Amino acid sequence: MAPPPEEVAVESISSYGVARSTVAGEPLNAEDLRKIDAYFRASMYLCLGMLYLRENPLLKQPLTKEHLKARLLGHWGSDAGQAFTWMHFNRLIKKYELDALFISGPGHGAPAILSQSYMEGVYSEVYPDKSEDEDGMKRFFKQFSFPGGIGSHATPETPGSIHEGGELGYSISHAFGSVFDHPNLISLTMVGDGEAETGPLATSWHSTKFLNPITDGAVLPVLHLNGYKINNPTILARISHTELEALFIGYGWTPYFVEGSDMPSMHQAMAATLEKCVLEIRAIQKQARDSKKAFRPRWPMIILRSPKGWSAPRKVDGQHLEGFWRAHQIPLPGVASNPEHLQILEKWMRSYRPEELFDKQGKLIPELKELAPVGNARMSANPVGNGGLLRKPLNMPDFRKYALADIVPGVSNLPSMSNMAGFLRDIVAKNMTNFRVFGPDETESNKLGKVYEAGKKVWMGEYFEEDTDGGNLAMEGRVMEMLSEHTCEGWMEGYILSGRHGILNSYEPFIHVIDSMVNQHCKWIEKCLEVPWRVQTASLNILLTATVWRQDHNGFTHQDPGFLDVVANKSPEVVRIYLPPDGNCLLSVTAHCLSSVNYVNVIVADKQDHLQFLGMDEAIEHCTKGLGIWNWASNDQGEDPDVVMATCGDVPTHESLAATALLRELVPSLKVRFVNVVDLFKLIDHEDHPHGITDREWTAIFTDNRPVIFNFHSYPWLIHRLTYKRPGQKNIHVRGYKEKGNIDTPLELAIRNQTDRFSLAMDAIDRCPSLGNNASWAREQLLNMQIKAKIEAFENGIDPENIRKWVWPYSKTA
Amino acid sequence: MAPPPEEVAVESISSYGVARSTVAGEPLNAEDLRKIDAYFRASMYLCLGMLYLRENPLLKQPLTKEHLKARLLGHWGSDAGQAFTWMHFNRLIKKYELDALFISGPGHGAPAILSQSYMEGVYSEVYPDKSEDEDGMKRFFKQFSFPGGIGSHATPETPGSIHEGGELGYSISHAFGSVFDHPNLISLTMVGDGEAETGPLATSWHSTKFLNPITDGAVLPVLHLNGYKINNPTILARISHTELEALFIGYGWTPYFVEGSDMPSMHQAMAATLEKCVLEIRAIQKQARDSKKAFRPRWPMIILRSPKGWSAPRKVDGQHLEGFWRAHQIPLPGVASNPEHLQILEKWMRSYRPEELFDKQGKLIPELKELAPVGNARMSANPVGNGGLLRKPLNMPDFRKYALADIVPGVSNLPSMSNMAGFLRDIVAKNMTNFRVFGPDETESNKLGKVYEAGKKVWMGEYFEEDTDGGNLAMEGRVMEMLSEHTCEGWMEGYILSGRHGILNSYEPFIHVIDSMVNQHCKWIEKCLEVPWRVQTASLNILLTATVWRQDHNGFTHQDPGFLDVVANKSPEVVRIYLPPDGNCLLSVTAHCLSSVNYVNVIVADKQDHLQFLGMDEAIEHCTKGLGIWNWASNDQGEDPDVVMATCGDVPTHESLAATALLRELVPSLKVRFVNVVDLFKLIDHEDHPHGITDREWTAIFTDNRPVIFNFHSYPWLIHRLTYKRPGQKNIHVRGYKEKGNIDTPLELAIRNQTDRFSLAMDAIDRCPSLGNNASWAREQLLNMQIKAKIEAFENGIDPENIRKWVWPYSKTA
Repeated sequence: MAPPPEEVAVESISSYGVARSTVAGEPLNAEDLRKIDAYFRASMYLCLGMLYLRENPLLKQPLTKEHLKARLLGHWGSDAGQAFTWMHFNRLIKKYELDALFISGPGHGAPAILSQSYMEGVYSEVYPDKSEDEDGMKRFFKQFSFPGGIGSHATPETPGSIHEGGELGYSISHAFGSVFDHPNLISLTMVGDGEAETGPLATSWHSTKFLNPITDGAVLPVLHLNGYKINNPTILARISHTELEALFIGYGWTPYFVEGSDMPSMHQAMAATLEKCVLEIRAIQKQARDSKKAFRPRWPMIILRSPKGWSAPRKVDGQHLEGFWRAHQIPLPGVASNPEHLQILEKWMRSYRPEELFDKQGKLIPELKELAPVGNARMSANPVGNGGLLRKPLNMPDFRKYALADIVPGVSNLPSMSNMAGFLRDIVAKNMTNFRVFGPDETESNKLGKVYEAGKKVWMGEYFEEDTDGGNLAMEGRVMEMLSEHTCEGWMEGYILSGRHGILNSYEPFIHVIDSMVNQHCKWIEKCLEVPWRVQTASLNILLTATVWRQDHNGFTHQDPGFLDVVANKSPEVVRIYLPPDGNCLLSVTAHCLSSVNYVNVIVADKQDHLQFLGMDEAIEHCTKGLGIWNWASNDQGEDPDVVMATCGDVPTHESLAATALLRELVPSLKVRFVNVVDLFKLIDHEDHPHGITDREWTAIFTDNRPVIFNFHSYPWLIHRLTYKRPGQKNIHVRGYKEKGNIDTPLELAIRNQTDRFSLAMDAIDRCPSLGNNASWAREQLLNMQIKAKIEAFENGIDPENIRKWVWPYSKTA
Repeated sequence: MAPPPEEVAVESISSYGVARSTVAGEPLNAEDLRKIDAYFRASMYLCLGMLYLRENPLLKQPLTKEHLKARLLGHWGSDAGQAFTWMHFNRLIKKYELDALFISGPGHGAPAILSQSYMEGVYSEVYPDKSEDEDGMKRFFKQFSFPGGIGSHATPETPGSIHEGGELGYSISHAFGSVFDHPNLISLTMVGDGEAETGPLATSWHSTKFLNPITDGAVLPVLHLNGYKINNPTILARISHTELEALFIGYGWTPYFVEGSDMPSMHQAMAATLEKCVLEIRAIQKQARDSKKAFRPRWPMIILRSPKGWSAPRKVDGQHLEGFWRAHQIPLPGVASNPEHLQILEKWMRSYRPEELFDKQGKLIPELKELAPVGNARMSANPVGNGGLLRKPLNMPDFRKYALADIVPGVSNLPSMSNMAGFLRDIVAKNMTNFRVFGPDETESNKLGKVYEAGKKVWMGEYFEEDTDGGNLAMEGRVMEMLSEHTCEGWMEGYILSGRHGILNSYEPFIHVIDSMVNQHCKWIEKCLEVPWRVQTASLNILLTATVWRQDHNGFTHQDPGFLDVVANKSPEVVRIYLPPDGNCLLSVTAHCLSSVNYVNVIVADKQDHLQFLGMDEAIEHCTKGLGIWNWASNDQGEDPDVVMATCGDVPTHESLAATALLRELVPSLKVRFVNVVDLFKLIDHEDHPHGITDREWTAIFTDNRPVIFNFHSYPWLIHRLTYKRPGQKNIHVRGYKEKGNIDTPLELAIRNQTDRFSLAMDAIDRCPSLGNNASWAREQLLNMQIKAKIEAFENGIDPENIRKWVWPYSKTA
């Protein structure tokens, strides 16, 4: 083997030739080498079969265009490198009895993964019709990227997969999530050099600063310098060896290089290098575990440089194929109409010598079968890859224990969030290997700091003197904080999909940073519902705080409640949105979400002190119903109301209640019904969402003919969208955030968006013609009060005390 | 000065002590040093004034709580490091006549930026009431983070800012955008170590592979190892010197360290290091420009390690303040109620010796004034920071020249996207320093490859032999492709905000990756409307293709048309959404968007061959109206229709037209009106959006009492939301993507979501009771046709030919 390259010119860092590798050694004897090469050929043969064939799977007949799929779909580009990596790890799984999972960053190279699973026998166990024989192979080929079949990524249908790799960027963070609190697991993680250009992936290499070698497992990344994306070279394949090595040392890893295309020497290099990495991981873990002293080593990783589409023809019709971006998807797209290309394909497929690899019946020959591990040691059968199998229910204290007691509705003013933090703290304490709290540097700011009493923040970076001064850092912490919503979300997804529980807390505006990730997770769990062997995993819980209405000094950039719109577009099977109006509701909702499975739950609640409305029993009842009339705040008892003041969200509830008080004072004859919605999807028709109510239930609460002044936490149009079919829909007037804001006091911000008490009371008055002359007088009063309060706020930079400390003046009637 | 540290233990990489720096030298004489230190103190004094004071700005009286703002808001943490960097660059701007812009990654350290602008006199020029005297200073202090005033980030109100820094992660990509095609510009870019943890920032360091030293300017990043985020240490401040240095070498930079807290030696170190960097940038540029040979150097950058909250008291009440996260926001939040803290604040403010810095009238003394450059050389006055000043209209060919000719409506089948690419190509050719195309590795895949004929892809990485084989790479390219939507978007934002034009093309599903960035850009341009001196910049144009309906093999993860919902939440002043139904409409819409200013324009169009509907003149008329009745596809001439088939989007239009043909065949008596919507916001009421139509116009098109079967490109609820107030709203039945999909042929995918021709025709029939018995017969026919087509698609893996190659059979009547 050639020595590792120095900073070199172009040619010498190409992917061709005899292997160059950091680790020396030839661990495979001739027999090993022969077998492993055959195993590789079998895998490649299966990959091509998936891309092209619907008949003649073993090429027993000469290949004709009738054997081809009518439409050729799928990706060849990274298949060889991925299969190569997977199968070389098999040797080590057997030799060292490893517990290993494979995460395929370039998930669109699914043929590699599927072929390995099929060769390990897992695919046929899970899908008996894809049996290990000619018929099974035919069905296995045909279903790939075929209508009614399976997708061309490592989709939920793929045994052993917890990472689809459809949207790129999350393989490393998912891998880390899978190994936290799984001390024996190694997640072998293939990272595409295309994926490596994404932001989320680029920062996730720093996850090493959050991995404890005593209590966590290890991630072994294989950065695949495949050279090309769809139509472009990749950045990391076109920088010098010096820069590449420096980059990963800088990220905190020890990179080992395996580079080349020559099969025998590449087999030796990969075998030696993977073994070196496994031994290094074991040594690190042993040192930390024996000494009981955690530390942050430079974890080993591999940089595998191999030609894109490796083992395809180098050129076709004078144009580069292997080692170029043309190998990305279907290498020979015109085979059906181009007889020469059909011949090239046949020759290429036969070059893998399928007749030597599979017996007459189509089964992989025993000497190759034996190369794979058995049972759950097979990476495609690892239970971590079907994490629901491992999921234990959370050990949860009774949330009622944390109730805010002696609530006087609309009068008690208490911190909902920091109270709930006590509940979270005790969940942490009771689930020290099963539950983590995630958040981008905002847990304390979000008033959840109590959780640190049970588990501090994981920190494997250097420690300074100041850290003892309330730093709350610990190597064995339970709270995961990095200023990357992407990484936090990716960790949590990996943690949950591998069988554990978690909650992410974030500022509301910046949760949009992970819109796309949450979308993809929704899609993952929805598809899991269609895969019978997938066992349900814990829900993904997102707690949004630092909400739009209290961004007094951060201003306009921090005002965006639109994440709810993104979530509401996902399938009703998998999404739930809760806006608890007060502290006891927050407790009830949180306990419910943490007990649930297979959902994405979004909870929106402000972190400041808040008016409280419901005692614990009432809160439980209210949250169970999901919405309801608050009689203590209504004066329509036994009669039809003149107007319904409806609310959803804590700050909106506060303002609407204040508006209701103003109405009682100014127009006491007006019958006001007060409604609060906790569970947003209650508003939808029951046919469109499992939580939806019927039109009859709707009418009983909202009426079908009275004006409804609906004060909503988020953009008002979401309510219109959810209620567009409802009786009396025309009478619903929704207020919410209308993208009007700046540096404003809470009152000013509300006024700009017409969600303040005065505007709401005016809204009600304007829509109640029965008030007659009283209406204009009352309206004028309200306008004067509003202007007065606004001027005071403007002059002092703070809302008037009667706004800030306002309480419901009719509490005695409760 | 101490030598640069090696891989070291904790203490020696702390931020305290005499400066340690890579670059030696003491360029400042004693007099320089005295002045520069005074300048620094003046800046710090102004920062504290902004955070705390509304009266007594020069501390002429003893400080009392009456002088304080009622609510203390803002950030102190990074102010010192940012001001320090800015002012040291002033010396070099003057010495070397630099054209420089300052980009503040930690935008929440706005006091630093504002103080520098005020000291340079720019602030008072732009806002005369914030004059350079005691009264002006008082107003300058009070307005900060105060209702009716300015935000606590580098908001649009901030002279010289094109980067708000509210949401973190985009400073480097914005900076690169600003220097592309600005060969003389240096964008001095402060990157917070918190921001550096985000994904978008982590990958944007690779922008060096896209910067040409001949035609582009330079970015000089200053990574500010400020040490702490809100409540946590930062990763990069807690890794070894070796790793840190390696990381940035790996990213392709030469990092120069400046570390410490001792003021005099830090001044010398920063002065020497910045000068070294400027000279290195100039040398690189000279070498490339003299030789006319571009190359990728390791560009210089600075790593500045200084204590968080530098120059604050180290401890207060025994708790760390300076050099700890407690210095992040208001350092002494309790000054109003804690007299001791008030005394500490006063002593601290007086320690900057304001009486030596400002004259009795409150004006910065002349010897300090002189340290800043003059005129547009002041960074806060650089016209690039108000890029509209530099914007030249695009030199655009007449888009009608590119018309798809001889269109037979519903019969011609032509490639809309690749045709439009010819128009884009010629725009590139005519605007070689003024327009760029951006996209994450998808330009070719999106059928826009023609643009490479005018400008290839910028590539400053290594070149391989294969690149000559259709690689389309060039150092002087005009198309920017990196597999990071974040970086592409950031580059484009920076490019546009500094006065140029651009368009981003992306797969539709993954545009959600930058939801948050687009949100923030919308907020930026909306606020610009309120800032009189901000000159309009070109619109941000986003072309979405590879749309939901044609994700046959990528499947479910690639199906997400929800970006429109995110955009529609933004202010109607700044967002526009277009769904051109065919190629000539795509041309018309694209030309319109590229000519516009101050919007975010979203264009959604599929990239495959498509049925064409309109000749160029009709297309222009249709796009100008934004929506309209297509008479050639309707048979209700002169009468009220029985049903309106409404469409928005190219694939939906195709299916609805096919449904209309089915209706003509099966129920010829049914009068069908065919409507197409190009400009989505036409649907809104004209009071809610400038493009909205009146109810009268609405009724003339959609009627107010006939069923409307609306086939929509995206999630159907968006149409309900946009039309909830419209006459006859109850009669609108919207079909769209309902999150149902997998590996499906286009027909199957449509059937799953009920947007296929058969389902749409059934929808119409179901809602036209006048059809009587005919209805059930026709329905049965449709169902049979649907089932037959579905079975054929399922068996062959491809839609039946009569679906794929369907044409409007009534073209003669057109």
